[in-house]
Amino acid sequence: MKKIGTLFLFLIISIFGLNAQAPKANNEDAFFIRKIYNEALTSNVSYEWLTFLCKKIGARISGSPQAAAAVNYTRQILDTLALDSVWLQPVMVPHWDRGEKEVVRIVGSKSQGDISLRALSLGNSIGTGPAGLTAEVLEVKSLDELDQLGSSQIANKIVFFNRPMDPRPLNTFNAYGSAADQRGSGAARAAKYGAAAVLVRSLTNQLDAHPHTGGMSYQPGIPQIPALGISTLDAEILSDLLKKESVNVYIRNTSRMLSDKLSYNVIGEIKGTEYPDQVIVVSGHLDSWDVGEGAHDDGTGCVQSMEVLHLFKKLGYKPKRTIRCVLFMNEENGLRGGREYAAQALLAKEKHFAAIESDRGGFTPRGFTCESSNPDFEKQLKRLNESFFLLESYGLFLKPGGSGADIGPLKPQGVFLVGFEPDSQRYFDFHHTATDVLEAVNPRELKLGSASMASLIFLMDKFGL
Amino acid sequence: MKKIGTLFLFLIISIFGLNAQAPKANNEDAFFIRKIYNEALTSNVSYEWLTFLCKKIGARISGSPQAAAAVNYTRQILDTLALDSVWLQPVMVPHWDRGEKEVVRIVGSKSQGDISLRALSLGNSIGTGPAGLTAEVLEVKSLDELDQLGSSQIANKIVFFNRPMDPRPLNTFNAYGSAADQRGSGAARAAKYGAAAVLVRSLTNQLDAHPHTGGMSYQPGIPQIPALGISTLDAEILSDLLKKESVNVYIRNTSRMLSDKLSYNVIGEIKGTEYPDQVIVVSGHLDSWDVGEGAHDDGTGCVQSMEVLHLFKKLGYKPKRTIRCVLFMNEENGLRGGREYAAQALLAKEKHFAAIESDRGGFTPRGFTCESSNPDFEKQLKRLNESFFLLESYGLFLKPGGSGADIGPLKPQGVFLVGFEPDSQRYFDFHHTATDVLEAVNPRELKLGSASMASLIFLMDKFGL
Repeated sequence: MKKIGTLFLFLIISIFGLNAQAPKANNEDAFFIRKIYNEALTSNVSYEWLTFLCKKIGARISGSPQAAAAVNYTRQILDTLALDSVWLQPVMVPHWDRGEKEVVRIVGSKSQGDISLRALSLGNSIGTGPAGLTAEVLEVKSLDELDQLGSSQIANKIVFFNRPMDPRPLNTFNAYGSAADQRGSGAARAAKYGAAAVLVRSLTNQLDAHPHTGGMSYQPGIPQIPALGISTLDAEILSDLLKKESVNVYIRNTSRMLSDKLSYNVIGEIKGTEYPDQVIVVSGHLDSWDVGEGAHDDGTGCVQSMEVLHLFKKLGYKPKRTIRCVLFMNEENGLRGGREYAAQALLAKEKHFAAIESDRGGFTPRGFTCESSNPDFEKQLKRLNESFFLLESYGLFLKPGGSGADIGPLKPQGVFLVGFEPDSQRYFDFHHTATDVLEAVNPRELKLGSASMASLIFLMDKFGL
Repeated sequence: MKKIGTLFLFLIISIFGLNAQAPKANNEDAFFIRKIYNEALTSNVSYEWLTFLCKKIGARISGSPQAAAAVNYTRQILDTLALDSVWLQPVMVPHWDRGEKEVVRIVGSKSQGDISLRALSLGNSIGTGPAGLTAEVLEVKSLDELDQLGSSQIANKIVFFNRPMDPRPLNTFNAYGSAADQRGSGAARAAKYGAAAVLVRSLTNQLDAHPHTGGMSYQPGIPQIPALGISTLDAEILSDLLKKESVNVYIRNTSRMLSDKLSYNVIGEIKGTEYPDQVIVVSGHLDSWDVGEGAHDDGTGCVQSMEVLHLFKKLGYKPKRTIRCVLFMNEENGLRGGREYAAQALLAKEKHFAAIESDRGGFTPRGFTCESSNPDFEKQLKRLNESFFLLESYGLFLKPGGSGADIGPLKPQGVFLVGFEPDSQRYFDFHHTATDVLEAVNPRELKLGSASMASLIFLMDKFGL
């Protein structure tokens, strides 16, 4: 009889239990989300913070004095938000230095004479030494092409990777993903066959005069050679000339890796009232490349993450779970901040409930993409979708997909990871180049991002996963 | 028996007939839409046309030599597209001239001395005469406030309309709609109570130094007084000063209405193969205000409409219905082109099947809004929705709503009217001001608009309404 009773109870719980435990989103929740948007759109704090980061501090590559200033500035801003705690998490970061202005010049062309090309050393690249180097240029469209050409064709040449970003994908990150191997691994692959240096067509949808930098890495056991990006317009000039004649290029850069520096992830949180041990991270990365002002990459993600906490405080929302803003250091050339954060979370046996990252620019929000190694991921996504309809009227989607580089190291811990996805059309106009400045950010688009992330976190916090 | 047979046949038609007549959108259609997008994203024609309109012709207010040049240029471009016909539709348009650079200056402030304010005459405004005028400023927030203040407070003063655009609506056009009465009708209402002139806070979400112009109109029987827009920053300066002291402002502008000029709507079409008498219009307006370059307003709408025809020709699509590109003249200060087009369509007993207008900027497409006076409108929308799912994966919505000013006069003819709706966040940063230039347009966002409109027209053409 007792057994039957238990079975009966189990059935009752099975049938009704889930609904009893899962409150449905209602008008009050819809109204609160509207309040989040209203507050974000009528306030200007995130844009003011971004203005300081861009105009008073500027580009802030890991290990630089500017990065240190950005740590102090954002920490002090978080201190003003009346959070439950604000702290710095130490992390050793690489310190790469561009050195003197790069020189890349077509030399002694029969038809054109000398032509200066607009170039930037790729991040982590070594330099040519003060004398520079001159070599013949070999154009290729892919890394695999190098394996076919082999040492006989490649040795002592400057390999010029010139595969453009495909204009067809609507989401420009897809085209970026398909072209970025040239920048990241081109030098190592070319060096394997004895190349002297590499030039890489900039990763942008625009045909313009701005060279883009970005991370590259060497392979153990393969010689390190200089790697530089040239603007898309200059890539066209060089490619056109190569169709007519053999071309020699002179390259001079003095880039170098310095010793590691102590830096920090900047963290602030509102403690949860019911489940303080369950942490929801909202994040961006504080470091940037050393050109432009790190506006869209990723000043916007940082100030949006800070604004999420500000919005909750301003509206008097007391989250059930702990909401933590993390401004990661060193996303661009090492990911040390993201790795350290995940390692420390594991050590401290912290339970991360969810993490969201904004690192695709401060453009009009389109939605969120989610991933997790948790076997219950599909169930979690379904659960979130039950309340997400409230955000559909704000033009947002929710679907499986990638999240963010800095929160990626949390994946093995089974955390529900979310990537904030703004409209992608303009991102690569500014990415890693001198034009990534405050003026490229529209204040309303920026604020809508803060509001969208705050709203999603509100739903996850209130209704669980 | 015959009757039962007829009834039976009727039932059969009722049950199966609709499906038999309405082919379902399938993979082939999805593939064709992808081809439209691929072609638009890999080509650059619309951006090149826009570059010419902006950089070689520039601002092109109705009646100006630049407007005439724009007529000739676009007509000749249409001539190169191998269309079935290209023609000009004559229309008399007003010719308003801004005159000399406006002077608006706070004079003799006790605390501040003189301060120049950045101003533009509103379109259609009269001038002060060469001597200008000086009067005390009265700030108001609404037209109704004037009725309460009455002549005793208003007579001989400069009325300063200073109600900002509400930052809260996600769609900035809603906020624009709620604030635009100050610009359009403010002068007439203030003149009713004896005001000397009006200053209007610019209609933009930005707090910046750019004055915006835009249409205004006078009322019969009420004196005409000068009306000028001042930048939002200057509106703040003026308003702040008014909190401390009474303020006099000097205004000088020499704007005036000249005699009507002959101009044209520019039209080109591909004749339908099955229903050549059923016309689908795709449109923008060729005139602009006389500041900036008329890039987003509405150069983008024009080149997108032209590109729709180009895409169909390039892809070898032979539409069942006639697809007609119409570049309307005089949307900004008279709507004469739109009215003339509708009047001529009625005269010629042309059957307009649908009309779409792009006049909300060349930003990333978000969707389409539709309206019609046809009693079958809901059925038509439902029918279109049956194939529209193919465009949902492109991030587009379809819903009832406004269409466009130029196609509006077709409404009494029961035409299915569609407004193309791009993302609205940035539009009023550039609208009617000196910053509406080519550089404000992202080429990919522009092209996505052409592709979205071509795809919608393809669905309407192939599957009907």
